[in-house]
Amino acid sequence: MRMVDIIEKKRDGHELTTEEIRFFIEGYTNGTIPDYQASSLAMAIYFQDMSDRERADLTMAMVESGDQIDLSAIDGVKVDKHSTGGVGDTTTLVLGPLVAATGVPVAKMSGRGLGHTGGTIDKLEAIEGFHVELTTKQFAKQVNDIKVAVIGQSGNLTPADKKLYALRDVTGTVSSIPLIASSIMSKKIAAGSDAIVLDVKTGDGAFMKTKEDSIKLAKAMVKIGNAVGRKTMAIISDMDQPLGAAIGNALEVKEAIETLQGNGPEDLTELCLTLGSQMVVVAGHATTLEEAREQLKEVIANGKALDVFKQFVEAQGGNPAVADDPSLLPQAKYKVEVPAKQAGFIGHIVADEIGTAAMLLGAGRATKESEIDLAVGLMLHKKVGDAVEEGDSLVTIYANREDVQEVIEKIYANISIVDTKPAIPALIEEVITE
Amino acid sequence: MRMVDIIEKKRDGHELTTEEIRFFIEGYTNGTIPDYQASSLAMAIYFQDMSDRERADLTMAMVESGDQIDLSAIDGVKVDKHSTGGVGDTTTLVLGPLVAATGVPVAKMSGRGLGHTGGTIDKLEAIEGFHVELTTKQFAKQVNDIKVAVIGQSGNLTPADKKLYALRDVTGTVSSIPLIASSIMSKKIAAGSDAIVLDVKTGDGAFMKTKEDSIKLAKAMVKIGNAVGRKTMAIISDMDQPLGAAIGNALEVKEAIETLQGNGPEDLTELCLTLGSQMVVVAGHATTLEEAREQLKEVIANGKALDVFKQFVEAQGGNPAVADDPSLLPQAKYKVEVPAKQAGFIGHIVADEIGTAAMLLGAGRATKESEIDLAVGLMLHKKVGDAVEEGDSLVTIYANREDVQEVIEKIYANISIVDTKPAIPALIEEVITE
Repeated sequence: MRMVDIIEKKRDGHELTTEEIRFFIEGYTNGTIPDYQASSLAMAIYFQDMSDRERADLTMAMVESGDQIDLSAIDGVKVDKHSTGGVGDTTTLVLGPLVAATGVPVAKMSGRGLGHTGGTIDKLEAIEGFHVELTTKQFAKQVNDIKVAVIGQSGNLTPADKKLYALRDVTGTVSSIPLIASSIMSKKIAAGSDAIVLDVKTGDGAFMKTKEDSIKLAKAMVKIGNAVGRKTMAIISDMDQPLGAAIGNALEVKEAIETLQGNGPEDLTELCLTLGSQMVVVAGHATTLEEAREQLKEVIANGKALDVFKQFVEAQGGNPAVADDPSLLPQAKYKVEVPAKQAGFIGHIVADEIGTAAMLLGAGRATKESEIDLAVGLMLHKKVGDAVEEGDSLVTIYANREDVQEVIEKIYANISIVDTKPAIPALIEEVITE
Repeated sequence: MRMVDIIEKKRDGHELTTEEIRFFIEGYTNGTIPDYQASSLAMAIYFQDMSDRERADLTMAMVESGDQIDLSAIDGVKVDKHSTGGVGDTTTLVLGPLVAATGVPVAKMSGRGLGHTGGTIDKLEAIEGFHVELTTKQFAKQVNDIKVAVIGQSGNLTPADKKLYALRDVTGTVSSIPLIASSIMSKKIAAGSDAIVLDVKTGDGAFMKTKEDSIKLAKAMVKIGNAVGRKTMAIISDMDQPLGAAIGNALEVKEAIETLQGNGPEDLTELCLTLGSQMVVVAGHATTLEEAREQLKEVIANGKALDVFKQFVEAQGGNPAVADDPSLLPQAKYKVEVPAKQAGFIGHIVADEIGTAAMLLGAGRATKESEIDLAVGLMLHKKVGDAVEEGDSLVTIYANREDVQEVIEKIYANISIVDTKPAIPALIEEVITE
């Protein structure tokens, strides 16, 4: 088998065989196939696409390129959730305990990552004493006992995907549906869960800018998951404005606690109920999304969701008192209000620019080496369509330095106030169950 | 400027600017742009094509990536000819003296190369004493004196093209019209001629297998040449069967001499008159192709073409007596006839396979290190459509070894004899003048 023949076959619009896809991924992982052939094939795939069978084969070849997590010591159908990434996305912090409270095991592997705020692990570390260094045995025992645990990424998962993603990033081949879908799904599958729920963000602040592309990606991932025996569902959710009110690590933990108490922002609560319902259904703990939603609302109302959160925090060394007293979280030195300069309605909040404003304060990492300040961030007081009076606070800045002029300017530049009430974008744009 | 942006721009179907194309070629030549970005761009070009302006810019960027030959010391409009390569193609040996005899300067840089037989230089070296080691000054003086000289390739011409071609070869991006056209034209332009005539071969034995693709390529090259100020014309000629009768180095020199005497094979003579007419016209020595053809026929008839050949051979150290006595050329030890096994008509002669048969005898190089045997080769006695009786010799094998069974078998396998006279393919399929 020669790589150049595989490239030409795909270039000419033919379907690659399982063996050809494996030959490529194995050779690329072990270095016998060079970057310049991989990038040329990636561009051919960009133009010629891949069939459902090819996408599933590519995904599994990447899964098998490295370690796979074995969760068989954990009872029941383990469910994972993945978001394609947005601004102020606190859903993982809420969903873990919430879904676990209905009896569904959530064995979560999380990362730190780059971005506007830290990853799930960074956020959880805002809780004093919390750590993610569990052995595999401890991890399994904790999920069996209290149904939820979060562990840091370990092992050499999907090295083919890591290498290919870095290459795609510099060769103009990132935005290819089969390549994105197989990249995400290979990581989720290697992480060992039996069922997967996907939150595909769409809009200005998301990786996928149009609803059409988001639906294509979501359907592609659901098909891959189900084709390789992992029950998978997805939603398309709006990321034209930040989710919830908090953007920042400790601030998002506080918001997650409030949501588990039933007092969270409307959009975050709704998104968690929607994703949570899918998680409960794919785990086989409910037959309809409506039935699942009732279970979730019940564990919020009866306090069980918050209880599981406390058990979870305690099990991983954190102080559970934080759930009743969020002032125990890291506090920023300075609070600066950003008042509306005129009356009207909020027209638009540019999600990724507002995220960048939070990063400027230190809430996220610009490079791998950056230190995160867990206390800082932004609280949004208005969402798109809300009425404002001149002088109303649009945003509170939580900072550990006095001079935040640059952040203030970025906020003003990216929250528009208009005269007539704009159409409010739907939060959940689509639910994809197969 | 970032290479990834250039790749994405082309991928999305936009026209690259002159600066972007230069940035790519300069960076790729000096190594700041890696192979994996170049191959990804090449594949994007394969799918999205290039405008006429982009093709001209790419060609000139490659020309300027290395040395350019300065032919200004030679008087008049210097004309070059390029063939996309076929089997038994003896045209260069004929055209140099033929066109020079009409007064048009032919300053030819030639190579050795891989293939069924040697390159033009190998063929000329079949003449005892002939050499191509001329200084630039000697080269210019010879063209001024007798209107024709051949020199070996020197200097670092189009390093960008060399690097890019090697990459395209292994990344499935060879067969792209803008990339092929700019590759060929950059080499011709860097070699310094003022005007260029192109012989694009089409058919089984050619790089371009269909007439449609050949016309596209020829038009692309003519447009590039004229856009950058080099008067350019092209023809499409048939390469479904070998050209002329001789395939082999000394054998082709003999055939070239016969053609200059007016006794050459009909197809080779016709092709030389057609290409030669274009050369005379682009050089400005005739206003119509018909007028140019009359000049060429005249110098054959009055012996001037053969005289120029003798002067040319003598000027470069060779023995001009070869023109009157071809037995002075290297002679093979063995002559083996390949008789027709049945009566009928020649149906098909698979050009590249017959070429390979000649290479098996030692007439061409399989690898750069191969030694060429100048004496060996094949003489075809029949062409497509010719009637044959059982026992008629189809081919004479000229060999320096006794056992040529493998060659005989290859010949039988690739010359078919059919019952009814087949349609005879036109030799000149198209003449492209702009």
